[in-house]
Amino acid sequence: MIRAGVIGVGYWGPNLIRNFIANPETEMYICCDLNDKRLQYINSLYPAVLTTKDSAEIIKDQKVDLVAICTPVHTHYKLAKAALEAGKHVLIEKPMTSSSAQAEELIDLARKKDRRIFVDHTFVYTGSVRKIKELIQNGELGDIYYFDSVRINLGMFQHDVNVLWDLSTHDISIMQFLLTVKPESVVATGADHFGHGLEDIAYLTVYYPNNLIANIHTNWLSPVKIRETLIAGSKKMVVWDDNQPSEKVRIYDKGVEVIQSADQVYNLLIQYRTGDMHCPRLDGREALNVEIEQIVDCLKNNKPSCADGEAGWMVVKILESAQKSIKQRGKEIKI
Amino acid sequence: MIRAGVIGVGYWGPNLIRNFIANPETEMYICCDLNDKRLQYINSLYPAVLTTKDSAEIIKDQKVDLVAICTPVHTHYKLAKAALEAGKHVLIEKPMTSSSAQAEELIDLARKKDRRIFVDHTFVYTGSVRKIKELIQNGELGDIYYFDSVRINLGMFQHDVNVLWDLSTHDISIMQFLLTVKPESVVATGADHFGHGLEDIAYLTVYYPNNLIANIHTNWLSPVKIRETLIAGSKKMVVWDDNQPSEKVRIYDKGVEVIQSADQVYNLLIQYRTGDMHCPRLDGREALNVEIEQIVDCLKNNKPSCADGEAGWMVVKILESAQKSIKQRGKEIKI
Amino acid sequence: MIRAGVIGVGYWGPNLIRNFIANPETEMYICCDLNDKRLQYINSLYPAVLTTKDSAEIIKDQKVDLVAICTPVHTHYKLAKAALEAGKHVLIEKPMTSSSAQAEELIDLARKKDRRIFVDHTFVYTGSVRKIKELIQNGELGDIYYFDSVRINLGMFQHDVNVLWDLSTHDISIMQFLLTVKPESVVATGADHFGHGLEDIAYLTVYYPNNLIANIHTNWLSPVKIRETLIAGSKKMVVWDDNQPSEKVRIYDKGVEVIQSADQVYNLLIQYRTGDMHCPRLDGREALNVEIEQIVDCLKNNKPSCADGEAGWMVVKILESAQKSIKQRGKEIKI
Amino acid sequence: MIRAGVIGVGYWGPNLIRNFIANPETEMYICCDLNDKRLQYINSLYPAVLTTKDSAEIIKDQKVDLVAICTPVHTHYKLAKAALEAGKHVLIEKPMTSSSAQAEELIDLARKKDRRIFVDHTFVYTGSVRKIKELIQNGELGDIYYFDSVRINLGMFQHDVNVLWDLSTHDISIMQFLLTVKPESVVATGADHFGHGLEDIAYLTVYYPNNLIANIHTNWLSPVKIRETLIAGSKKMVVWDDNQPSEKVRIYDKGVEVIQSADQVYNLLIQYRTGDMHCPRLDGREALNVEIEQIVDCLKNNKPSCADGEAGWMVVKILESAQKSIKQRGKEIKI
Repeated sequence: MIRAGVIGVGYWGPNLIRNFIANPETEMYICCDLNDKRLQYINSLYPAVLTTKDSAEIIKDQKVDLVAICTPVHTHYKLAKAALEAGKHVLIEKPMTSSSAQAEELIDLARKKDRRIFVDHTFVYTGSVRKIKELIQNGELGDIYYFDSVRINLGMFQHDVNVLWDLSTHDISIMQFLLTVKPESVVATGADHFGHGLEDIAYLTVYYPNNLIANIHTNWLSPVKIRETLIAGSKKMVVWDDNQPSEKVRIYDKGVEVIQSADQVYNLLIQYRTGDMHCPRLDGREALNVEIEQIVDCLKNNKPSCADGEAGWMVVKILESAQKSIKQRGKEIKI
Repeated sequence: MIRAGVIGVGYWGPNLIRNFIANPETEMYICCDLNDKRLQYINSLYPAVLTTKDSAEIIKDQKVDLVAICTPVHTHYKLAKAALEAGKHVLIEKPMTSSSAQAEELIDLARKKDRRIFVDHTFVYTGSVRKIKELIQNGELGDIYYFDSVRINLGMFQHDVNVLWDLSTHDISIMQFLLTVKPESVVATGADHFGHGLEDIAYLTVYYPNNLIANIHTNWLSPVKIRETLIAGSKKMVVWDDNQPSEKVRIYDKGVEVIQSADQVYNLLIQYRTGDMHCPRLDGREALNVEIEQIVDCLKNNKPSCADGEAGWMVVKILESAQKSIKQRGKEIKI
Repeated sequence: MIRAGVIGVGYWGPNLIRNFIANPETEMYICCDLNDKRLQYINSLYPAVLTTKDSAEIIKDQKVDLVAICTPVHTHYKLAKAALEAGKHVLIEKPMTSSSAQAEELIDLARKKDRRIFVDHTFVYTGSVRKIKELIQNGELGDIYYFDSVRINLGMFQHDVNVLWDLSTHDISIMQFLLTVKPESVVATGADHFGHGLEDIAYLTVYYPNNLIANIHTNWLSPVKIRETLIAGSKKMVVWDDNQPSEKVRIYDKGVEVIQSADQVYNLLIQYRTGDMHCPRLDGREALNVEIEQIVDCLKNNKPSCADGEAGWMVVKILESAQKSIKQRGKEIKI
Repeated sequence: MIRAGVIGVGYWGPNLIRNFIANPETEMYICCDLNDKRLQYINSLYPAVLTTKDSAEIIKDQKVDLVAICTPVHTHYKLAKAALEAGKHVLIEKPMTSSSAQAEELIDLARKKDRRIFVDHTFVYTGSVRKIKELIQNGELGDIYYFDSVRINLGMFQHDVNVLWDLSTHDISIMQFLLTVKPESVVATGADHFGHGLEDIAYLTVYYPNNLIANIHTNWLSPVKIRETLIAGSKKMVVWDDNQPSEKVRIYDKGVEVIQSADQVYNLLIQYRTGDMHCPRLDGREALNVEIEQIVDCLKNNKPSCADGEAGWMVVKILESAQKSIKQRGKEIKI
């Protein structure tokens, strides 16, 4: 039985609590928040869960095995460091830290302490993303040409981070999970329309080896909500529309074939291939439920996690580089 | 009566011919093509139209007032120059020329010869774009925050130009027509997946003064066809989905209001406003029909055109700069 | 303060409880169910609410003003009768009773006892239906030509009623609320594919005076979920797509004009009119919340309800007649 | 070489002409129309095709093998009769005749004269319908439960026939082609909103043996254009949305399983099955092209046609019965 303590029960924390309770191998033991009302709310729903206003109480509690950190980004590093030093495993809300240097430090510390870091890249546990991962892994898509993702809607403006750190985090974590390639560099553009220094619209290009390219468009100022990801490979192409109530992942048996004729050395003959479209049935389980199940499996059986400290670091590294690029109007930043 | 000669009757030329015939104030007089079969095709449809294989015959013909040039881009400059020198007005297929220097030369020449240059930016004559222009001009959208356009599909790979020069041309001409602001600089990224040096996917950011930003995503490798443009202003926001059979332009009474509180100098209070959505009835006339009507009006009444040489030059200038940027992985190129 | 007792806390009852708690003028006092687990569930959520396994306890309790009946249809009559006789107001789940005779009896009893009957026609309290009602009432649609509704999906097969009594109930209550006209007759067709005597697919036509016609298609065997209602008037037409996350109600400024020429007595000249489309912003409040607010208003201020016993009776009468018709392959049944 | 004569070159005739020209085994020889302008139009497009104002000229011409009749319905019988008597094969626009008696007479006459009748049920030659036919024939859908089709839009009001004879004809011909079962009876309802005796909205139920049921909703007064057909079988279910530019036919691996438990004789246990969705690639050829190819094959190789006189008769018989039913408010009419 893994005993969990949750720091921060604002928007996301309660979902973790609910899922720690649902999992038969985790015990939802204690949670904390600075806000009394939030603690009362948790108390009313789950009278058995202990509550405190002091995160240190959770961190030092001998009974706690895993500390989940669901607080604003700028507090992640300090809390995770304290928890690791106290010998706890940690599950950190995404993005993992405010800087890649902080992430590196935590990774080192966890190694020394022989503890595990999990980053809550929730999307990689959805049925949609796991299905696409499967398609890529078993070669069904062929060589990947590009990853293109749009995540736009009206609001929710954040006060401390720009739209990259808010929305792109999702897409970057999904992208790295799927592509499993180290990026070469990033180029980001964007604009801040309200003069508070935080971009509300951003376009991020990520260059990978072998002409693989990715682009992520995030936007807090769109009249319509779009969640659409295109992934094209040399064999098949995928459209993932997360707004759809069903048939979220469509696999197109479409492609391009290039025939280089002997005599026409300068001309490429391009042929288009159009076949069936297929929507596989997806596992409809809640992503957090799958995630906690996998965390338990990692801890019990000493298995690697697909959302470990290194994965969290990579997301922060890309965000950090994108941040530098966006402030210099698209200057290429090497990773 | 304006007498028209059309050079090049491949894919687009016949549409011009049909519309020159339909307009009561233009006479479709003569056309040429190097391909006999295309000329025979025109002959069978319109026996009264003269045909020739030699473009010089059209250019030197005293009866011709307007020479329409519907040939590959790299031939535009030479043909337009000859036509202007022979004292003709010209209508040039988009993009106007292969370089901004060529476009400048043609503009100078036209001025000297007191002739007019029209560039066939067909989209700006559609009911959709004219309606959006009207909304911007009468202030209904407020200050424009961004222009975001996606034009992607499978194919049609071009042999001589990359996806920027092929597809983005449309969006750039629409964008400049709508925004009527000189861009500051561009940043472009993209990839060539088939090793022939022509990008098949491209992302172009255009920076304008006052935090106005534009982005255009064009792609020859998408399994789905998307033609969607978002334009957000401080008052209203527009989504133009050109794939829809009807209700192409949706106007959202949505927005963001920023309240700067006196005491909280570091905090912006953001409020969202969500009202009705409105789809105005659009003029369904063929764009080319409207375009030729306006060309006639410009010539008869000496009026300015919204798609003149300067407009054509700007599109080429942006493409040219984007081309430089894409080859240097997003290096900002000043306009 | 109106004190409420809820009989039946299976699927729908808990929603009523939550909304009785939320309304400042109702007190959620007591509930009952035959199933212990359901009572425990309510207890854990709302420890202040009394629970019992005996509905008679609620009915005879002097403190209870309003008895809400959320049990299977065949039990409505008996429970509502007992509650009315005990001097309570009643809120009855839809459909009101198993037969129109039962409904009539309850209406009479309520009149004698000077108590009120409310039927839980939840949909008529949604922002969508109230907006359409407003359009009809203020004459914006003109004379109504037809009401056409499709409510189909896979499942949920009921064990005691056919698809008419299960799904059409919604559409009939909406239709009567909007049209406020007494139907002349009904024609219903359908089929039972599993031999248990309960139709899983049904088509119901309702004839009204003045060529107004309605049709409702309900189906438990559809691979796709459709919730779409069309209402066409002489001035405008409405499409209500309840599956959409937003822009559920679209108002089309479209129509037909008939011109009777003097000389062509046998020919009608039909002209089509196509104008703008408009999606009004809708009140997003939960329908049950609005409903309970209105029930309070009816009770406090002795106002009429749009979902009273008579409205409930009409829905049952139409269902009952449709049932007769469907068993005789579309025989017209007068209302 | 089959020599074709076409009577009537209004809306549809020119499509036939174009396809007779395209087929290498048919010769488009002669056409007629009462309207000079239409003949001039054909002449300008196809100078080699003979034209006449007198249909008798076509019918008596020794060179003509096949007479295609594209005139208003009430003239079909007379023209087809004359053509058959003159020893020609006939291709008759749908619906075949104004009454089933006329259709029977033509079938008899054709038999006596050893000539062939083809009815232009164009839709059964589309890639979509042929794919669905294939799915039904190879058992992939299992036993068919229902056929439900919606064909609605604004206009085009006809002056001589109601919406049943205009729009439902398509669905009835498709339905009979797919189901290949003789209907037992029909029930139709509808309304005429403009007092000229022709229904502008109609609902048609067709009863088949074994609880197979069909419904067709046609409507000239809908603000939106819908072309959607649902076909559910015991194994799989199909949605055909003819408005989609691609992915018109979706095959759902969904269904219901009924388990009859030994002890619970009155209860059926229903289980839902939800699997993948599949959009097969469809043959994109023009339906008329396929149709003429098949007509040639039927004539050359003496093969049966899927749209012969009997098929045409059945469509007329259903329409005629529906007409009787609609005038008697849904009275069941046996076929």
